[in-house]
Order: sequence, then structure tokens, then C-alpha cells
Amino acid sequence: MNTDSTTNRIWIYDTTLRDGSQREGMSLSIEDKLRIAHRLDRLGVPFIEGGWPGANPKDVQFFWRLQEEPLQNAQAVAFCSTRRPGKTAAEDPMLQPILSAGTRWVTIFGKSWDLHVIEGLNTTLEENLEMIRDTIEFLRSQGRQVIYDAEHWFDGYKHNPTYALKTLETAIAAGAEWIVFCDTNGGTLPHEISQITSTVIQTLRQNTDIPINFGIHTHNDAETAVANALTAVLEGVRMVQGTINGYGERCGNANLCSLIPNLQLKLGYDCIDPSHLVKLTETSRYISEVANLAPDDHAAFVGLSAFAHKGGIHVSAVQRNPLTYEHLQPELIGNKRRIVVSDQAGMSNILAKAATFGIDLNKKDPKCRQILEKLKELENQGYQFEAAEASFELLMHEAVGDRQTFFEIKGFHVHCEQLEGMTNVLATVKVAVNGKNILEAAEGNGPVSALDAALRKALVNFYPALADFQLTDYKVRILDGGAGTSAKTRVLVESSNGQQRWTTVGVSTNIIEASYQAVVEGLEYGLILQTQGKEVVTLS
Amino acid sequence: MNTDSTTNRIWIYDTTLRDGSQREGMSLSIEDKLRIAHRLDRLGVPFIEGGWPGANPKDVQFFWRLQEEPLQNAQAVAFCSTRRPGKTAAEDPMLQPILSAGTRWVTIFGKSWDLHVIEGLNTTLEENLEMIRDTIEFLRSQGRQVIYDAEHWFDGYKHNPTYALKTLETAIAAGAEWIVFCDTNGGTLPHEISQITSTVIQTLRQNTDIPINFGIHTHNDAETAVANALTAVLEGVRMVQGTINGYGERCGNANLCSLIPNLQLKLGYDCIDPSHLVKLTETSRYISEVANLAPDDHAAFVGLSAFAHKGGIHVSAVQRNPLTYEHLQPELIGNKRRIVVSDQAGMSNILAKAATFGIDLNKKDPKCRQILEKLKELENQGYQFEAAEASFELLMHEAVGDRQTFFEIKGFHVHCEQLEGMTNVLATVKVAVNGKNILEAAEGNGPVSALDAALRKALVNFYPALADFQLTDYKVRILDGGAGTSAKTRVLVESSNGQQRWTTVGVSTNIIEASYQAVVEGLEYGLILQTQGKEVVTLS
Repeated sequence: MNTDSTTNRIWIYDTTLRDGSQREGMSLSIEDKLRIAHRLDRLGVPFIEGGWPGANPKDVQFFWRLQEEPLQNAQAVAFCSTRRPGKTAAEDPMLQPILSAGTRWVTIFGKSWDLHVIEGLNTTLEENLEMIRDTIEFLRSQGRQVIYDAEHWFDGYKHNPTYALKTLETAIAAGAEWIVFCDTNGGTLPHEISQITSTVIQTLRQNTDIPINFGIHTHNDAETAVANALTAVLEGVRMVQGTINGYGERCGNANLCSLIPNLQLKLGYDCIDPSHLVKLTETSRYISEVANLAPDDHAAFVGLSAFAHKGGIHVSAVQRNPLTYEHLQPELIGNKRRIVVSDQAGMSNILAKAATFGIDLNKKDPKCRQILEKLKELENQGYQFEAAEASFELLMHEAVGDRQTFFEIKGFHVHCEQLEGMTNVLATVKVAVNGKNILEAAEGNGPVSALDAALRKALVNFYPALADFQLTDYKVRILDGGAGTSAKTRVLVESSNGQQRWTTVGVSTNIIEASYQAVVEGLEYGLILQTQGKEVVTLS
Repeated sequence: MNTDSTTNRIWIYDTTLRDGSQREGMSLSIEDKLRIAHRLDRLGVPFIEGGWPGANPKDVQFFWRLQEEPLQNAQAVAFCSTRRPGKTAAEDPMLQPILSAGTRWVTIFGKSWDLHVIEGLNTTLEENLEMIRDTIEFLRSQGRQVIYDAEHWFDGYKHNPTYALKTLETAIAAGAEWIVFCDTNGGTLPHEISQITSTVIQTLRQNTDIPINFGIHTHNDAETAVANALTAVLEGVRMVQGTINGYGERCGNANLCSLIPNLQLKLGYDCIDPSHLVKLTETSRYISEVANLAPDDHAAFVGLSAFAHKGGIHVSAVQRNPLTYEHLQPELIGNKRRIVVSDQAGMSNILAKAATFGIDLNKKDPKCRQILEKLKELENQGYQFEAAEASFELLMHEAVGDRQTFFEIKGFHVHCEQLEGMTNVLATVKVAVNGKNILEAAEGNGPVSALDAALRKALVNFYPALADFQLTDYKVRILDGGAGTSAKTRVLVESSNGQQRWTTVGVSTNIIEASYQAVVEGLEYGLILQTQGKEVVTLS
């Protein structure tokens, strides 16, 4: 492995399964961890840190399961601290599960910061060096290859550079193949990373003949984790540790979904096969699904909004030459350009949308201006279509006169009663299908769920596909909240049929009415998809 | 204004209201914009860009309203492009609303990139220079001070440095006081920002005797917006443009909630008064509430998890010496350390709150633990007291056994019907005052306003003060939106008696029930204030 600063290769080291899962609110089962590991393997990440076997039973089992279902290309890595003070590595039971994990690579983290040795480990500076040496030599003697994570590297170096350097020299002499600079508390800024990394690499290379490879591990507490890692690479580091979607404790780890395209597409390094790079967006969304965390729509590179264009001038320019308002071709990382509709929209947005929806419309068609007027009028009333494309599509079909009618809404009635702590909610709906009136009633734990249930009961015999529709998200925004309870309410409803998702909107001073509008349009749009076999947002 | 690179002062320029509101899914009313502007003013931000008057009617009205309710210290800034090709600035109607906005400062953005001049503006390179000159000179002649935003600066400079420099020299000669380097597409990396900024500042200072001030405006498309801005400051830039919470188009703008503490606490620059810096976390959360966007718990510095420590070694170490696992004292920016497993932090919080509310409580009182348990149970159910202190105060009075009883809630009934486009809403409430049952009914334009009206009718004879109470804000957030219409709803209601404001909270799967809880507590708290003559939040 040639990893000196002259190579163009960067070794990506993923720690989503270990450091990433320290994120507050994130909890992965063994199955989840296996799914993620195999997905990262397919993405082409060379190192996948799976956990600290022994720290919890889950991580022990994860590595055993991985021996049954091995990764195709990536190296699974077990993570552990240096041995405890006062006993040898061979005697320390902590290292046994590391060996049983059966990985070729082990990452050992040790203390670089004198303060942590004394206050955290309650031992001497000399014993800490001995712990580093002994642990690495023991693992090497057991045939393992060792990555040494220098914890609190930058803080340690700033406080006591001489001692900090000694810890690294000890790790190198003991046989660690990689030395990783960790900004554990995440507060170091890029210019400091740059200065320290450059000085340290130079010093270590001068002091030893052993070829050493360097890595970087950063956290986002100053919102500079990505820049910190890039800076270190420019100073000669060749391993980059991070997590998918930047998951991690506190403010998260360096985000591989930003680092990989920055390194590969902007700086020209070689991280993963370009044919795999197009899976980056999908991988990001898949892992957020598995972790059951809402994806960040505004994430760099892979977010739903990362290549969304709103303003009218932007839109016409980006359509003529994407370079004008895009820093990168979204397709390279499997994302796509989106044209968003809003009251800042011009004619070009409308035309672009029409094309997406398969509606034949040209600039000179008076309908085009009618749609724009209607859009502005509705947005003035509080409608918002940028997050409710399905409702916008229905509006456009209405305008060009080809909106399909599946059912007709005649009315509804909601009864909601609370007495002595007991609540009853009952909804009745009246709809017409093919000229025939249907009346249905249902209960619910709130007025909207009762209405939704009644409506489905009324329609499912005519449209059996409805049975597969689900409401997957429900958002309420009070417009001009200053008007108190008389304020207008905007409701966004996201629906799914298992393969696709779409969002509809309703607005009214009456929250029940607004919700009902959105729910009704959600069902209608789902039926259009059903009849047209049309593609919207595919669930990965 | 001395802004050369030797000063330690950084001018923060907030564009949450203009560039920030380009974020997909963000939509601010004029009232929202005014609230945010005044909050930023109180934070001590010197420049607040309010919008582009003329681009939409909302921004025109915003600046008019701001003339009636002026900012105390900050400069409101109107934003506009250079005049259109082929006519003079004085003739261009686009500039009239800018003058009517009545701000001392105007930001003019112009093209630096030849590609954009030719492909975007469809004009010549010479005419673009003329547009820059003419627009700035015209505004200067009208007594305005001008900030010149060089759009696509870095891309433009990379493609054609000679022309790009000419655009800046033109702006400087025409009288712009600030030149702002904008990375409009957000794809530039820190090392490029550093090189270009350093070269350009040097070149421009060599070529002219006019003192020039430089600024930076970055976007987060490469997840390096914060680092990019910091880098530019280190190269001599003294104005930093960004938005609260990093809101903005696509992946957002540079996040002022990270930039301000990085600049002030880590790099030693002078951005805002240290006594205001402690309001940063509160400001971030307030603005996310107004924008009705869920706050990012993992945001650097101001996120709920930014200083959260999970069990074991971290916790004991951080309690002995916070430096070991914290890059910064959270209190400096108004955030707090959270120990996820221990409730020690919670206990001191309860005690601090009790003191604020004038409730006599000491650490050893078992009630203290009871309140904490109750609080945790309620927060687990979805209650949130950070934004609903009045409800929290009622909860504490309940716990210590001195909650006053003004009325007793017996039940309610809501009837909501829509038939042939006509809607009827009727609410009935049953309350008891001094053991006497009262039944009242009222209509409304929605279920909550009907309930509110019925409740007031029932109580106003007993408590005439109620006649002055108003619901001043009403917010709804769907918790676990993924559960669709069965999701839990949290309602925040802000009430006012004309002098004071207070906020209460309700949670239920039934939106009507959740709203009713919050409305009822709002009236109750208002009555406590009435009897105690107590001071809460004064109206801003």
C-alpha cells in the first residue's frame, strides 16, 4: 500500500456503525448494521468500522454475523482502546473479543493529550506510552494490521507537542500502519488543522525511516468538519474517516456524502470507483431509512433540495447552461435537478414543470399565464406548492382541462366530544362516484384520521388500490399566527402507495377543512398514478 | 468606518430575510419578517438585509412597516440588482421601490462572470460595467451608501480574472463602500477562497487609493460555507454575510450561528457584544419557531445535542473538567451542557426556574424530584416547555400545591359540517366556577376559534378581565409526522392582555383537544397574572 503524499488515492474509512451511531436518537439493530455494512461495501468504501466488540454484546454478534455474511471488497475493522494500565495486553480480557471478531484490521485509539492521561486514565505519561506500544505490538503478533487513532490529537498537540509526538512515535515503532489525527472535541478550525498536520507529518517523516500513512478524523462542532478533513488531505493525509450523512455524537462526524464528491470530483483524488459514485445519493437515503432518521433535504450534494432552483431568472439560466447556477452535475452523484414552483416563479418555471408532468404547454398559450395568475392568487391565500407538487400538477391539469374525475366531494360532518376525560370522534363523509351518492362514517383518534378513514371506506369498493395508500407525513402550518385561532391553516399531507410518494396541500381558517382538502387530493393523485403507471419519487 | 485588515471588528450582515427565505419550504409573512428583524436587531447584528423591494409586494410592505417600527441599532438594507441594460439607472423603474424603502444602505448585486453577462443578461461586457457604475453612482447621488455584492465572484474570477477585476474596480470607483465576494453557486473550496481572496485584495489595494472594505458571502453546496467565510476573514475580509441557522436556497447560506462564535470566541474577532452573544441559542430557536421549521438538534453551537454527553467516562470527565470533552463553554452562547443519563443538570434547571417564578423550592425537597419526573414524562409525550414557560409555571405550582383554581373544565363538544361548499362550526363547552356548572355554545370559522369563543362566553361574567385577553399566536407542530393523521400534535398558543404575553402548550393525537388544552391554560395563566400583577414578557 503506497500512501505517501504523492499518491492520488484516498482511503475512505467509514465509521457510521461505530462513531455515527453515537448520535442522540440513533439506534441500530444488528440487522440494521449488517444492511448498512453491505451497502457501504457496494458503494466501494475500503474500510468499514463495525463497532467495539466487547463494549456491548451487539457489536460482538455483529462481527460474528459478518463472518457468515462477509463483505465483498471492504475491510471490516474492529475498534478498541489501548489496554488498561497496569497489566499486559496479552492479559487484558478487553482485547480477546477484538481477536474473536476475526478482522484483519483493528483500530486502536489512544491518548495524545497529557491532561486526559492524568485526569481521564489516572495513570502516568510513561504508562500511557507503554499501553500504546504493548497493545499495538500484541495485535501485530496476532497477525493484525493496526490503524492508530490519536484521540484529542489537536488539543493534545497544542497543550504539549513534545508528549503528543512521543505517543505517535511509539505507535509507529510498535507497527501501526496508519496514524490518524482525531479532532475528538470537534472544535479545531481549518487553519489550525493545516498548520499542525503539515508540521507533524514533516517532523515524523524526518525522525523515522518507517513509511507511515496518515489519516484524519474530524467532528462538526465548529461546523467545519468537512473543510478540516479536506485541509488535512491537502497537507498529505491519505485516509479520511467519516460517516454517512455526518451522523455522530453532538454535532456529528465529518460527512462522507460531502467529502467523497469534494475529494473526487473537485480535487481530483481517487476515492471510489466513478461507477459507484452515482450511487451516493441513493446510499445516503437508504442509510437514513435504515436508521429511521428523516433525511436532511438541504444536505450538500445528496439532499433533495441540493440542486433545486426557485427564482425565475435562475431557472431560465440553468436550463440554458447548468454551469451558471450549479457547482456540479447532480447526475455524477446520482442526484437530480429540480425546478421548484413558488410565487417567485416565472413563466419558465411553469413550462419546465409542465414538461415534467407530461403536459403539453407552450409559452404563447394563454393558459400558461392563467396558471401563473392562479398560482400567485392561491399562494397569496396561503397555498404553497413548492412542497406540494402533486396539488400543483392537479391544478395544471385543471387549467388545461384534462383533470380526471374519480369522485366528487359532497360534504362531511365531524363530531368531536370530550366529557369527563373521555373523547369521542366521529366523521361522516358524503361523496359521489359515477353520479351515485355514498355516505360513510368512521371513528378516529382525531378529526382528520376519522375523516380519512370514512373517505377510504366510501371509496375503496370502487378503487381497490386505495387499500395500499398510506398517509406518511402530515404537516400543519398556521399562517399569520398573529390572528390567533382565526388564523388560516395550511396543511401538507404526504401519501405513499409503497413505491411512490407525493404531497398535497389544503388551506382554510378551519383546520379540519384544510386537512380534508389535502387528504382528498392525496387520494385523487394516488389514483392518477395508479391509472397512468407514472413515476414520482421512488422510495429507495 | 475603519475596516482594513488591521481592525479586529467584523461586520455581521444577516440575509435570513432575503437569501435565507429562498430555502425550499420556508415562507415568511410580513409579520414574521418584522419579528425576525427586531430579534436580530436585539442580538446586535449591524446589517439586516430585508428583501428586494419591488420583486414582490411583500418586501415593499416590509420596508414600509419597518419605517413605522424602526430598528434600534441595526441598519436595514434593501437589496437589488444593477439596473437593466439599455436605460439609465434614473430611468429604470426597478430602482424606485429601492429608494422608497427608505434605507440608508442598499446592496446592489452585479455580474462578475463574463458567461453570466452574455448568457444571463444578454448584453455586452462593456454594458455590464456601465450598469454597475451607473447604478451605484445613482444611488450615491440619492444619498445611499452602497454595498456591492459581486455575484459568482469566484467562478467568474477563475474564468476571466481580468474582466472580473474590472467589475470590482468599476464598483469601487463608482462609490461602493463594501465589495462582497459572493460564492453564489456554493461550490468553491476553502483553499481556493483563500488564494483568490488574498490575491484580489492585494491587487485592488495596489491599484487604488480609495479605502475599500471587503466582505464574503458563501453558500453551503460543498458543506464548507462556514470554513469558506472564516478563510476569507483570515485573508482580510471584514464583513461576513450569512443567515440564522444557515437557511437558504439549495443547501443553505453560511450559518451565522456557527460563524459568530467561531469568529468571536475562537479567533478573537469582535462581532457582537458579548452580553448579546449569550442570546445566540435563543435567537436561533426563536427564528426556527417563527419560520415554523424544526430546529436542527445537531447544529453546531446552538443545537440541543451540541453539548450533550452520553454516559460513562465522558460524563465524569466532563463534570470534573469540561475542557476534556467540550470545545467551548456552552454558556457563552446561551446553550447548555446536557448529561443524557444523569438528571443533575435537570435538577439545577428546575431550581433555577423555580427561582424565576418566585416559587420557594430547595434541592432536598422531594417535590423537586417529582417535578423533574413529571417533566420528563410530559416531554416524552411530546410536550415542550422551552417555548411554553407559562404551562411550565402552572405545572410547578401544581407540584408544590399552590396552583390557583379559577374554573374547572368539564367537557366540550365540537360540531363541524361542510355541505355543498358551506361550512358550519359550532362548539359547546361545559365549565364549573365555584361549583356551578355553566354550558355555553359559540360558532367560529374553525373548531378552535369556536371553542375559544364559547369558553370566553362561559367565563367572562366571573372574570371580566378575560375581555381584554387575546390569542396572539397559534402554532401547530405534528410530532412523529410519519404516523400520518394518527400522529401526535403539539399546539403552542400565545396569549396577551395588551401589556404582557405568555405561551402555553397542549399535546394530543386529537388536534382539537391539544388546542383546547393550550387555550384553557392560556386563560388560566392570564387570570393568575391579573390577580398577582405579575410581569412576564413585555411586548416588543
